[in-house]
Amino acid sequence: MSPDHIQLLVTGGTFDKEYNELTGELFFKSTHLPDMLHLGRCRLDITIETLMMIDSLEMTAADRQLILDRCRQSPARRIVITHGTDSMEDTAAVLGQGIVDKTIVLTGAMVPYQFGSSDGMFNLGTALAFVQSLPSGVYVAMNGRCFPWRSVRKNRELGVFESVVDGVNPNTG
Amino acid sequence: MSPDHIQLLVTGGTFDKEYNELTGELFFKSTHLPDMLHLGRCRLDITIETLMMIDSLEMTAADRQLILDRCRQSPARRIVITHGTDSMEDTAAVLGQGIVDKTIVLTGAMVPYQFGSSDGMFNLGTALAFVQSLPSGVYVAMNGRCFPWRSVRKNRELGVFESVVDGVNPNTG
Amino acid sequence: MSPDHIQLLVTGGTFDKEYNELTGELFFKSTHLPDMLHLGRCRLDITIETLMMIDSLEMTAADRQLILDRCRQSPARRIVITHGTDSMEDTAAVLGQGIVDKTIVLTGAMVPYQFGSSDGMFNLGTALAFVQSLPSGVYVAMNGRCFPWRSVRKNRELGVFESVVDGVNPNTG
Amino acid sequence: MSPDHIQLLVTGGTFDKEYNELTGELFFKSTHLPDMLHLGRCRLDITIETLMMIDSLEMTAADRQLILDRCRQSPARRIVITHGTDSMEDTAAVLGQGIVDKTIVLTGAMVPYQFGSSDGMFNLGTALAFVQSLPSGVYVAMNGRCFPWRSVRKNRELGVFESVVDGVNPNTG
Repeated sequence: MSPDHIQLLVTGGTFDKEYNELTGELFFKSTHLPDMLHLGRCRLDITIETLMMIDSLEMTAADRQLILDRCRQSPARRIVITHGTDSMEDTAAVLGQGIVDKTIVLTGAMVPYQFGSSDGMFNLGTALAFVQSLPSGVYVAMNGRCFPWRSVRKNRELGVFESVVDGVNPNTG
Repeated sequence: MSPDHIQLLVTGGTFDKEYNELTGELFFKSTHLPDMLHLGRCRLDITIETLMMIDSLEMTAADRQLILDRCRQSPARRIVITHGTDSMEDTAAVLGQGIVDKTIVLTGAMVPYQFGSSDGMFNLGTALAFVQSLPSGVYVAMNGRCFPWRSVRKNRELGVFESVVDGVNPNTG
Repeated sequence: MSPDHIQLLVTGGTFDKEYNELTGELFFKSTHLPDMLHLGRCRLDITIETLMMIDSLEMTAADRQLILDRCRQSPARRIVITHGTDSMEDTAAVLGQGIVDKTIVLTGAMVPYQFGSSDGMFNLGTALAFVQSLPSGVYVAMNGRCFPWRSVRKNRELGVFESVVDGVNPNTG
Repeated sequence: MSPDHIQLLVTGGTFDKEYNELTGELFFKSTHLPDMLHLGRCRLDITIETLMMIDSLEMTAADRQLILDRCRQSPARRIVITHGTDSMEDTAAVLGQGIVDKTIVLTGAMVPYQFGSSDGMFNLGTALAFVQSLPSGVYVAMNGRCFPWRSVRKNRELGVFESVVDGVNPNTG
């Protein structure tokens, strides 16, 4: 295995939601990550594995333990995880407390790829770049920025990620 | 000005080409970079400046000198340049020989953004991530990868960028 | 008013649903019909009026009476109505029993226009063509076909519209 | 063969142009019409045949004779032809002078389908509706309108089709 090898773990999230035209509801079928890498003309050495396909609001402690175990077992030193945005910071905290010798970047999307999401392709690009260039640690890549796991929070009113210091936003709190 | 400030210099290239439905030809109007950053939900502190809107096959030594001058004059320590892919390595070489104290990343696209290009959003994401995380130097970000200016070449047969050592591809040459 | 004048009445339906990226739910904001006519390079003499923005499963008898009244009052002899697909045949029946001297075509979409729906543009094209070329009557235009109001049914399993004779599908019943 | 059977003849035109990302030029590969009918959820009984894949500026008298012959030979009484817009009126005239017992509708697009063309789907919808509902004759369907072959002209300045009487626009000439 090349030292440049990147493991891409799929957990679902808005990234991979689809529209069921018979019911008018959103659902998961299979991941679009291979299509996205193809359209991005990506030439990195990437292995994709789907761990689960769920909304991150429904992610349990057992699901997070599974993600942690899979990150530890992976031979790759660089790992990108696609994840729903609503509890991305929680999974990042579990990984940050459990792994110190790998570079792990979580990313997601605000709009499903199937709906012409432009933020999905953009975020995937940032995540793959950060995972190649940052030292060991667990990070969240959203909105063009990269946050260490200890200092990130999703602002649900604005739908953006922002920095916090010990759980407090230095700008507002 | 924030130390995180990023200067985005636009020079044209496939990124910004449009289809003229009266003539059936491709042409340049104005840059789509602001739209692309908006759709990517990008929250970085970025200033966009359009230096020129040309096909990189038509770029002259004077054009490259203008780009070099503008990079030097910019107060930003981190600069992303959108550029046609056909002579991206040449402009990178001019900048690499002329600037040592800034991080500069050139990127482009294989398909115009207006034609539903997915590689444009992906490449823009990688360029903005690499420019934040890499040390001073001049780089080309394409295909998910980042190449130092001395060791990059566009493979015109495949339409991808690849590593070269002193102008020789270590895999093929 | 030109005799070629077409009235376009908007009632909502999948056509105009949008994705709320803060909640992950579908909702109505405003109609995309003007954008769609613009992208279709449509040069017909059309007036657009939004009567309501609702899911057709929630459409009441009072809503249908409002649509009927508005069709009667309109000076236009040719009317297209955008409508959710789930109860399109019911509204068509109310109009068919109440109006005999106008050409009225109902149409809709299986996928929201915002999600890159191709059937919305296609269906809108067929509806505007049928309304110009068919004699007085009330019709449903879906799947490239045009059904008189007395002989149409949505097949919910397949998500397509089909012909029925007195409520019975001649192929299956 | 069903009396509702529609023959779709493909001749190329902007409809089917693609972007060659290696050369930056537009070219023809294969037709997108099957994809377009699929995305439009079209349920008509249609047979697609590709006669040629050319820019209509390059269409010769021999090409037009081939189209005429194929229309005559087809068992279908209803025929849609996709065609470049620049000489659509010329082919329509050849067909109009040569065939009187079929309904033939020519249509095209101002923007390639591959570039996210919305007018292609819209125009295809109008053409398929007009061909089902109009009496025998040869027509051009563009801009939501349907023009008999004797009274149509492409306005190259505006990129739209307009009515002419004996070659004179009644509005401007």
